[in-house]
Amino acid sequence: MALKSFIEVHPDSHFPIQNLPYGVFKPEPESQPRPGVAIGDYVLDLYEIASAGLFDGPLLKGSDCFHQPTLNKFVAMGRPAWREARATIQKLLSSTEPALRDNANFRGKSLIPVSKVEMLLPTNIGDYTDFFASLHHATNCGIIFRGKENPVPLNWFYLPIAYHGRASSVVISGTGIVRPSGQAYPLGDSPPSFGPSQKLDFELEMAAVVGPGNELGKPVDVNEAADHIFGLVLMNDWSARDIQRWEYVPLGPFLGKSFGTTISPWIVTLEALEPFVCEAPKQDPPPLLYLAEEISRNYDISLQVQIKPAGHDQASVVSNTNFKYLYWTLTQQLAHHTVNGCNLRPGDIFGTGTLSGPEPDSLGCLMEITWNGERPLSLNGATRKFLEDGDEVIFSGFCKGNGYKVGFGTCSGKVLPSIP
Amino acid sequence: MALKSFIEVHPDSHFPIQNLPYGVFKPEPESQPRPGVAIGDYVLDLYEIASAGLFDGPLLKGSDCFHQPTLNKFVAMGRPAWREARATIQKLLSSTEPALRDNANFRGKSLIPVSKVEMLLPTNIGDYTDFFASLHHATNCGIIFRGKENPVPLNWFYLPIAYHGRASSVVISGTGIVRPSGQAYPLGDSPPSFGPSQKLDFELEMAAVVGPGNELGKPVDVNEAADHIFGLVLMNDWSARDIQRWEYVPLGPFLGKSFGTTISPWIVTLEALEPFVCEAPKQDPPPLLYLAEEISRNYDISLQVQIKPAGHDQASVVSNTNFKYLYWTLTQQLAHHTVNGCNLRPGDIFGTGTLSGPEPDSLGCLMEITWNGERPLSLNGATRKFLEDGDEVIFSGFCKGNGYKVGFGTCSGKVLPSIP
Repeated sequence: MALKSFIEVHPDSHFPIQNLPYGVFKPEPESQPRPGVAIGDYVLDLYEIASAGLFDGPLLKGSDCFHQPTLNKFVAMGRPAWREARATIQKLLSSTEPALRDNANFRGKSLIPVSKVEMLLPTNIGDYTDFFASLHHATNCGIIFRGKENPVPLNWFYLPIAYHGRASSVVISGTGIVRPSGQAYPLGDSPPSFGPSQKLDFELEMAAVVGPGNELGKPVDVNEAADHIFGLVLMNDWSARDIQRWEYVPLGPFLGKSFGTTISPWIVTLEALEPFVCEAPKQDPPPLLYLAEEISRNYDISLQVQIKPAGHDQASVVSNTNFKYLYWTLTQQLAHHTVNGCNLRPGDIFGTGTLSGPEPDSLGCLMEITWNGERPLSLNGATRKFLEDGDEVIFSGFCKGNGYKVGFGTCSGKVLPSIP
Repeated sequence: MALKSFIEVHPDSHFPIQNLPYGVFKPEPESQPRPGVAIGDYVLDLYEIASAGLFDGPLLKGSDCFHQPTLNKFVAMGRPAWREARATIQKLLSSTEPALRDNANFRGKSLIPVSKVEMLLPTNIGDYTDFFASLHHATNCGIIFRGKENPVPLNWFYLPIAYHGRASSVVISGTGIVRPSGQAYPLGDSPPSFGPSQKLDFELEMAAVVGPGNELGKPVDVNEAADHIFGLVLMNDWSARDIQRWEYVPLGPFLGKSFGTTISPWIVTLEALEPFVCEAPKQDPPPLLYLAEEISRNYDISLQVQIKPAGHDQASVVSNTNFKYLYWTLTQQLAHHTVNGCNLRPGDIFGTGTLSGPEPDSLGCLMEITWNGERPLSLNGATRKFLEDGDEVIFSGFCKGNGYKVGFGTCSGKVLPSIP
């Protein structure tokens, strides 16, 4: 019989007892931020659960990890502590366990309607890295910018290409994104133009949240890399294509990306995703030894992008894709990231890069969907080449279980006009 | 008459009373880290000075900014507080002021020989950015990699090119640097090779430490940018040229840089550098409006690189250059960094990029000095194309005043063998 909570959870909810993702929230505007777990339409306040002494396993008993304003301390504790926490929370919320179910007073204090809380960034992000690990995305970008002959550079097939992004401008879902200003590619012999970006785009990504880090100088073995990953979130790597195109040679993207990156508030753990593991794409050429894993795993996560155009009530679906198309796995990304001795720290995040699929309706950014503006997109009465002020972009994602979903909720943001 | 301290300071010292740079140190191995100021061969313990109530100006009285384990809180307070602190410390250390001079007990407690303390990173670095702002360096790299025709891409002359570096692997002077392993450019049709880098290099840079930050979405005007810069340090942006060359297209440097970046421990403030302001190079084409400053300022800072080869007792000078050759000023760099709305936070750092000068003996990295290994360097009995295990690289820098120096001390690191 499927595990069931005493809290009623709709079969379409992303947050049944099988999920239990972690976030950080404020129950009241003046409260201290604290960790919580999503269950149906509620947040379980882990500050209260810990204060009541309900984390009584050997690793978490007496720990102050849930009395912190971020999840950094908890994610640093590693998989044994994560398993213990999950078992405790799953038991506490199960339909057969009276401790919370039958204590109306404590229930009222520790289970708060998610509609009433403010969600915050789940960790203090020391560094944010962004990979470029979807072959479909790399191919499409290559064709758009360099033509059909060899669109993907040779190095792409040997190493998970990545760059460091800006940690300070990672924001939580729901935060408005101010249209960036910057220089765009000059036309003819003119100097470059300057002004608000005319090619503002989203990028559908997921990001891994680092658990225990590694010491500077000490690489992580690819077969042990999963123990350094706490879980996943949805991520929108907002991009100004015109700014990016002019600035990115030779040192890569900078201002075309650093004006904002949105993540979803709930970190879905690898434990919760375990039933949805699937094979990763075959890699040809074979990866070098340090990237050759014993088992190569992806996850079957359906992803969807919707745009709600400025002034419209209705959002339109503009892409349906899946995490499983990712070429370089998360564990390969992490092993590559550390192979030179680079240290990761608990709470760091690394994005997958845009998650485009093989089909025309499974592309992960407007640059691909509208082919750099050549094929405007119809949105139920509106048309778009790129994003306009007031447009809202909404990502969602979930895994389909037997009678339940393990989901990520949404990752959304509205474009605000540039400041004059 | 020149300002003089009651502490004897040798005329060649980098740390006379005219300097007063800030750092973070531990007086004893078990002590809490705390802010200090260098004076001659001593560190003035600001924790003790603050505890004694000696910061009695309107902005610092009662503040706990010097009771913090980093300088982030102090640098966030802005120039008026920095001026007040400098005036207080300069008075306290001056030869005519008895408060500290004549109190042997308090002097013993608050002035510690620098040889006895451990220096730590001065700030918690939220983000580390690296610019590419020396025209001589950009030109040399362009010729080496792309040939003599148009070595510098057109965008370089319109925008201060930069990329985000790795904040987690920024380390304090004296920390060993483990030789990174990684993939190198394939020869012919073979797959890329993997192993310890064969082209390990240093890069002579300086880095600015951000004072007050800016809000996400709100650019900083170039004419107000100096108020967001607390001071400068020396920086070695260690680089693995073989790893970098293979990975950097199309998203820029990643593992070729992220294994370690060394900074000097003492932040020399812009106030202390004020007497050494000089004109910045003329910019042609003229900068776009948002980069056009009313006054364009560089600093006349002599910089030197020495290498002490493995197994040798003596270091050899391999470069003498100057900060004043920098093409894009620090304030232009900061204005550009934020023009898209990107937020800087107090304690962030941004590097200038390699500071090569116009002369053959004023180049800022081995790639330029040995012309990518083609012209090995003679080092008093040893020869080098790139760095070998056990080599120590030592940067120093100072401004020459009338009878005194305002200096940065040294920024050093020794290459450790790669971990098998």
